[in-house]
Amino acid sequence: MATTELDHLIQLLAKLPGLGPRSARRVALYLIKRRESLMEPLATALTEAANAIHPCSVCGNLDTVDPCAFCRDPVRDQGIICVIEDVADLWAIERARVFKGRYHVLGGTLSALDGVGPGELRIDALVARVKADEIREVILAMNATVEGQTTAHYIIDRLAGTGAQISRLAHGVPVGGELDYLDEGTLTAALNARTALKSAG
Amino acid sequence: MATTELDHLIQLLAKLPGLGPRSARRVALYLIKRRESLMEPLATALTEAANAIHPCSVCGNLDTVDPCAFCRDPVRDQGIICVIEDVADLWAIERARVFKGRYHVLGGTLSALDGVGPGELRIDALVARVKADEIREVILAMNATVEGQTTAHYIIDRLAGTGAQISRLAHGVPVGGELDYLDEGTLTAALNARTALKSAG
Repeated sequence: MATTELDHLIQLLAKLPGLGPRSARRVALYLIKRRESLMEPLATALTEAANAIHPCSVCGNLDTVDPCAFCRDPVRDQGIICVIEDVADLWAIERARVFKGRYHVLGGTLSALDGVGPGELRIDALVARVKADEIREVILAMNATVEGQTTAHYIIDRLAGTGAQISRLAHGVPVGGELDYLDEGTLTAALNARTALKSAG
Repeated sequence: MATTELDHLIQLLAKLPGLGPRSARRVALYLIKRRESLMEPLATALTEAANAIHPCSVCGNLDTVDPCAFCRDPVRDQGIICVIEDVADLWAIERARVFKGRYHVLGGTLSALDGVGPGELRIDALVARVKADEIREVILAMNATVEGQTTAHYIIDRLAGTGAQISRLAHGVPVGGELDYLDEGTLTAALNARTALKSAG
């Protein structure tokens, strides 16, 4: 039907998350119609990013330098490590512009079903980092999923005896969220962690 | 936040149809985790497809050869041309494995709103082709949208006097379709074009 080159491109595009065979065909045609403005720049950008970007040997973040820009930044507090599942979570926290410590990217969560054990994640590196450097606080910022919380519990066990304060993100009502649309788990957490306001007395 | 190379890649990915800034970030991370199995092959496939694939000068189909494989195929009926909006529509018809004539890809539809006039589409080339070759039938297989049907009417006017039989795809109930889910337009078309079965008398 299509040519070998086009078929091959469509097959590779269909492997990307969120794209199936149909949308991959659409993307391929879209690219070929924009050969100079999009297709060739994308090929170059892929090659350049593949060559330039590597995981940071300290924290697992992706960067062109090793250690990464966060691990090199002297302004960032060396004593606080925020542990996240994935680089995308690091980006999400950075968008909030509120955290000024360092990061540690696990590279996933423990999952017996998917065969992901502690050896597959960067947990040993985290424990070694907490022991070697003077870390005052480890913030566990895993997703509020079963896998994320299982991983958090495992890390809490592994960090026992290091002397670092361990904390986790607060659970509660998202800012802008409507109670009517929240699940019972979130509402229970928000009620249990309710904050005292000024007494009416 | 991210590196220049990664930012640039994400910006380009976000231009693809169906991807936004968030899914582009997800795709970029997915690619970097699969550097050798997906990212580098995709860069190569993009470059190879960009270099190898060009529109057929006869029919507008995309192929590595010009004229394209369909236009070269001596088995395909030269006397019947199926006119479609886009190469994706050609692929859809080919998947049905029922049409054995040649194609003509318009490259879009007439749209006053988007500033697409007859000059932007391959309509002159179609008229010239019908006049020069001995074309018995032109099948207008535009989408059943306002733009598609406007374009079809324009082409019917332009082909007046060429002597070719002009036809269009049948409208009706899709095979496997349930009446309850069909719009009134389709049901009206299906009723008006109803087919006589054997008389019960």
